Amino acid sequence: MSDVRLARVALAHLAEPGRRDLGELVRRLGPVDAVRRLCTGRVPAALRQATAARLAAADPWAVAEEALRRAGDVGARIVTPEDAEWPPQLGDLVRLSRSGSDTIARDTDPPQCLWLRGPLPLDEACERSVAIVGSRASTAYGAHVAAQLAYGLVERGWTVVSGGAFGIDAAAHRAALAADGRTVAVLACGIDRAYPVTHTALFQRIGEHGLLLTEWPPGADPHRRRFLIRNRVIAALTRGTVLVEAGVRSGARFTLGRARALNRLVMAVPGPVTSAMSVGSHEELRVGGTILVADADHVIDAVGSIGTDLAPVRRAEPEPRDALTPLQRQVLDGVRPRKLLTAEEIAAVVGVSTSDARRALPSLELAGYVTAVGAAYRLWRKSDDKPPRLP
Amino acid sequence: MSDVRLARVALAHLAEPGRRDLGELVRRLGPVDAVRRLCTGRVPAALRQATAARLAAADPWAVAEEALRRAGDVGARIVTPEDAEWPPQLGDLVRLSRSGSDTIARDTDPPQCLWLRGPLPLDEACERSVAIVGSRASTAYGAHVAAQLAYGLVERGWTVVSGGAFGIDAAAHRAALAADGRTVAVLACGIDRAYPVTHTALFQRIGEHGLLLTEWPPGADPHRRRFLIRNRVIAALTRGTVLVEAGVRSGARFTLGRARALNRLVMAVPGPVTSAMSVGSHEELRVGGTILVADADHVIDAVGSIGTDLAPVRRAEPEPRDALTPLQRQVLDGVRPRKLLTAEEIAAVVGVSTSDARRALPSLELAGYVTAVGAAYRLWRKSDDKPPRLP
Repeated sequence: MSDVRLARVALAHLAEPGRRDLGELVRRLGPVDAVRRLCTGRVPAALRQATAARLAAADPWAVAEEALRRAGDVGARIVTPEDAEWPPQLGDLVRLSRSGSDTIARDTDPPQCLWLRGPLPLDEACERSVAIVGSRASTAYGAHVAAQLAYGLVERGWTVVSGGAFGIDAAAHRAALAADGRTVAVLACGIDRAYPVTHTALFQRIGEHGLLLTEWPPGADPHRRRFLIRNRVIAALTRGTVLVEAGVRSGARFTLGRARALNRLVMAVPGPVTSAMSVGSHEELRVGGTILVADADHVIDAVGSIGTDLAPVRRAEPEPRDALTPLQRQVLDGVRPRKLLTAEEIAAVVGVSTSDARRALPSLELAGYVTAVGAAYRLWRKSDDKPPRLP
Repeated sequence: MSDVRLARVALAHLAEPGRRDLGELVRRLGPVDAVRRLCTGRVPAALRQATAARLAAADPWAVAEEALRRAGDVGARIVTPEDAEWPPQLGDLVRLSRSGSDTIARDTDPPQCLWLRGPLPLDEACERSVAIVGSRASTAYGAHVAAQLAYGLVERGWTVVSGGAFGIDAAAHRAALAADGRTVAVLACGIDRAYPVTHTALFQRIGEHGLLLTEWPPGADPHRRRFLIRNRVIAALTRGTVLVEAGVRSGARFTLGRARALNRLVMAVPGPVTSAMSVGSHEELRVGGTILVADADHVIDAVGSIGTDLAPVRRAEPEPRDALTPLQRQVLDGVRPRKLLTAEEIAAVVGVSTSDARRALPSLELAGYVTAVGAAYRLWRKSDDKPPRLP
């Protein structure tokens, strides 16, 4: 058992995740000396005060040893930044945390360690991953779209990351599982806690086929503030975050904000403007740089690698008239359904030369658009001998 | 009767609107000499061919004199660029037409003259105006949103411009009329033609309270191509164009493209991603610079003058917890509903110092969030004596 690993686990027990002061201490001294220093109390006042009560309650080394020993009992493994499985993209949180803005960068330092449950290697699972987040109080529309997106993403080899909550999160996880795809749930409580409790079976399935992860030690409750702190991990693990439905006030919008601050791709699904559950999505789409996505192709178009993941551009079905030249179309505009007009008359009506009309009309007749009667023309109709076909 | 005015009317009869070659001729020679030159045939070949059939059919001066005499018979007045009522913003079309790109700038020269019917002065009506366009095959959702937008815009003094077509156009015109607001219908046929014919009563009301206008002489049929040529006038007259619903293939998207090329504001209303009638809107919103609008406030926020038309930002309803400090909120996270915890225990749970917990808890009690029992705390409940209130 390495001391560094033990120290990381001790740090995860000593302070709430995301603290920049703790992160800076660890980056300066290394995890082992950081724990020792915390024990002496010779650290910045805010950090000393934040850890004092937990330090007083138990010896951090003993707590960490016990935690490492008992990880298996709760079906979890512990992964630290020193492990090969640690996803390097979590390191981007250091830059965000150091950016110093109190509103944007608060509690954004990387986790000290993670508790994981599930067969997937975390780094591989998240290399090509997208977060799907949204309201707990989703509508049937939102749940449908989240499921469609998740289904489409895992079908093309992408991992769906979400927060395991009611509503959009659950719809995304469930669709990914249904498609035999990879899904990762990032929790805001201990790995042994099923929150919400009605998702016990869902978490069980994710733990068997995907990955459950958290930065809180077993037994930790899902406090309100922990959901907000947790959201930075969802944003940092993935190449981009898709917001499916959100009211004006929404933790999912907070996750989108974290993704934006991390320079990840920021996407949102629109909905009816008459739906309160799409107001948050629309407000986010009014922010420059947010990409509107309507399906998995749009998402992959944004997060995929150029050249390998190009989404098909939506094109209209071709119409027979598309094959006509501009001149042919213009002349055809002047031909009437019943009234017979000469080439001269048609030319005057649509504003082309008589010679142009004389050139275009036979080709339009050949293509089955017009019928010639003597020197005059009218539109082809079903009772005429030949059907329209492409010229 | 000025010769210039007569010449403009003759030009409107001689060629389909929007031709750059004709526009350049008029800008070089003036309208009178441009007509004379056309009569001689000493003009570029394409222009000579395009006008030859109409020149052969009748003397353009006689046609124009007759048109001017008969404008009143069809209830119309004729307005040319020389008139005070001519909206100067139509001049922006010259720049677009001269830009030379064949796909973007084709048929975008300004009109030579307009036929108008209705009590509003055109320049004033369009000074603060917005175009609302969309699919003929609109859904109930689209028609509802178009009507809400139009209602909200005219209520705040803006004019609603549209194309008089089925669906979104009609919903916008009707709502503007219902709100006693100003609306302008830009037609793609003669002012004496009601197209579609079921809109006869709608056009009648617009002609009585708003404004009908067209660049085609009386009697002109609504050819397919004319709708596309007409769309540049809708885009140019207004400060911005809002697309409400559109399929993948849509003339309304063409109007939005014209607005974009004219550097007007380009807006679109989102809808369910499951609706084929919102696919065009979403594709437009995926183009950089397109503004997502969900209501009239959003539209006015975009097209209005800075400082006078600021739209209210959508904010969540304040919650009592918003008034708490970050420390108070963090400490409150650790207080349990039933189980009594001391300040030390709560501090350890949420990761703050004991002194911070000791400072925050009495204020949370005072604010009615927690109840003290001896030296311990639990969450306030209804059976306790006092209700929660803002601190």
